[in-house]
Amino acid sequence: MRPYEKDPGRIYAQSFATVRAEARLDRFPPGMDALAIRLIHACGMVEVADRLAFSDRAVEAGRVALAAGAPILCDCEMVGAGIIRRRLPADNDVVVTLNDAGVPDLARSLSTTRSAAAVTLWPDLLDGAVVAIGNAPTALFQLLELLDAGAPKPAVILGFPVGFVGAAESKAELAANPRGCDFVALRGRRGGSAMASAAVNALAAGLETDTHV
Amino acid sequence: MRPYEKDPGRIYAQSFATVRAEARLDRFPPGMDALAIRLIHACGMVEVADRLAFSDRAVEAGRVALAAGAPILCDCEMVGAGIIRRRLPADNDVVVTLNDAGVPDLARSLSTTRSAAAVTLWPDLLDGAVVAIGNAPTALFQLLELLDAGAPKPAVILGFPVGFVGAAESKAELAANPRGCDFVALRGRRGGSAMASAAVNALAAGLETDTHV
Repeated sequence: MRPYEKDPGRIYAQSFATVRAEARLDRFPPGMDALAIRLIHACGMVEVADRLAFSDRAVEAGRVALAAGAPILCDCEMVGAGIIRRRLPADNDVVVTLNDAGVPDLARSLSTTRSAAAVTLWPDLLDGAVVAIGNAPTALFQLLELLDAGAPKPAVILGFPVGFVGAAESKAELAANPRGCDFVALRGRRGGSAMASAAVNALAAGLETDTHV
Repeated sequence: MRPYEKDPGRIYAQSFATVRAEARLDRFPPGMDALAIRLIHACGMVEVADRLAFSDRAVEAGRVALAAGAPILCDCEMVGAGIIRRRLPADNDVVVTLNDAGVPDLARSLSTTRSAAAVTLWPDLLDGAVVAIGNAPTALFQLLELLDAGAPKPAVILGFPVGFVGAAESKAELAANPRGCDFVALRGRRGGSAMASAAVNALAAGLETDTHV
């Protein structure tokens, strides 16, 4: 077998250098470029840079919220598992309500998915929160419905639901009308929990990396 | 806001129908087509079907191993978090050694990544196991090195490391010489924990879905 790179610092440096060489990053404001690099690093696709929608203050709003101790609300366990806890600036709570005991019954009574039902448990936590959605389009739709109904606004919505039914549509709705919230979203079908986690990690630490991954 | 689909059963059915309509699945043997559909469903990209490498008996080997109670060895917490536990046929152990206490020191002493160091803790568990790698190329390289050194063979290796340094190379090495193990791998830079989890879930349950997601 041929030799391969084993040094974590060099792996990160080579990865980020490749992303900078191949991705179109010039349209991003400072901070957003780092978030885009981390997203690309998480998925291996430089072209997702061309499909990012975002508000100009999204990164700043997310950083300020995290520094102030805002909770991070995730639509699934995988997003939570991808957040590097030791990088969070205020030991922020990472909240996943998807597997709360009452959620299956709630979903049945609301005639919706478990993912959406879990979001209906968020209103008391939403004010100024960082929301990271990496799986279910219905979770993002449900959040937007809560906001339309007057729920408190999160500081930033990181919208990365994935798939063939509702993912593109829910992110287009977020981008068209973010309801007074800052946001980042990947247009189209692509997305996923690794991207949602990467976006949170970028807000928490920019491009800082650990020397031992 | 426009109406959107909220019914979990219909969401799954529409998703799988779109994948079947758009993806090129005819080259896959029975069982592997279902695994490919779940992979595509997890990432939103039908074209990954064209980049899958696999051994003909990979799905059967994985199913038999899970039914026999084989452990599932994962390179990171996100892969473990994406595995639907209640679908596992034998309450199989899901093992992630990445955050074991000794791993950072081990990585330093081996001059490698934490992900690779964590894999060096697997030999006693490898015989007949299901291995799911969804993050670190160095984890897959390390596994192949262990096999070359005579470690027991897993039943199947699900190779989905992602990124710009070593991902394509490690998966090419697996596909070129699977060392007597069955395998599935996505060629190139793309991959990720959601795909690795989806591959495990496909081995455990095919295309069966929950009515409440």
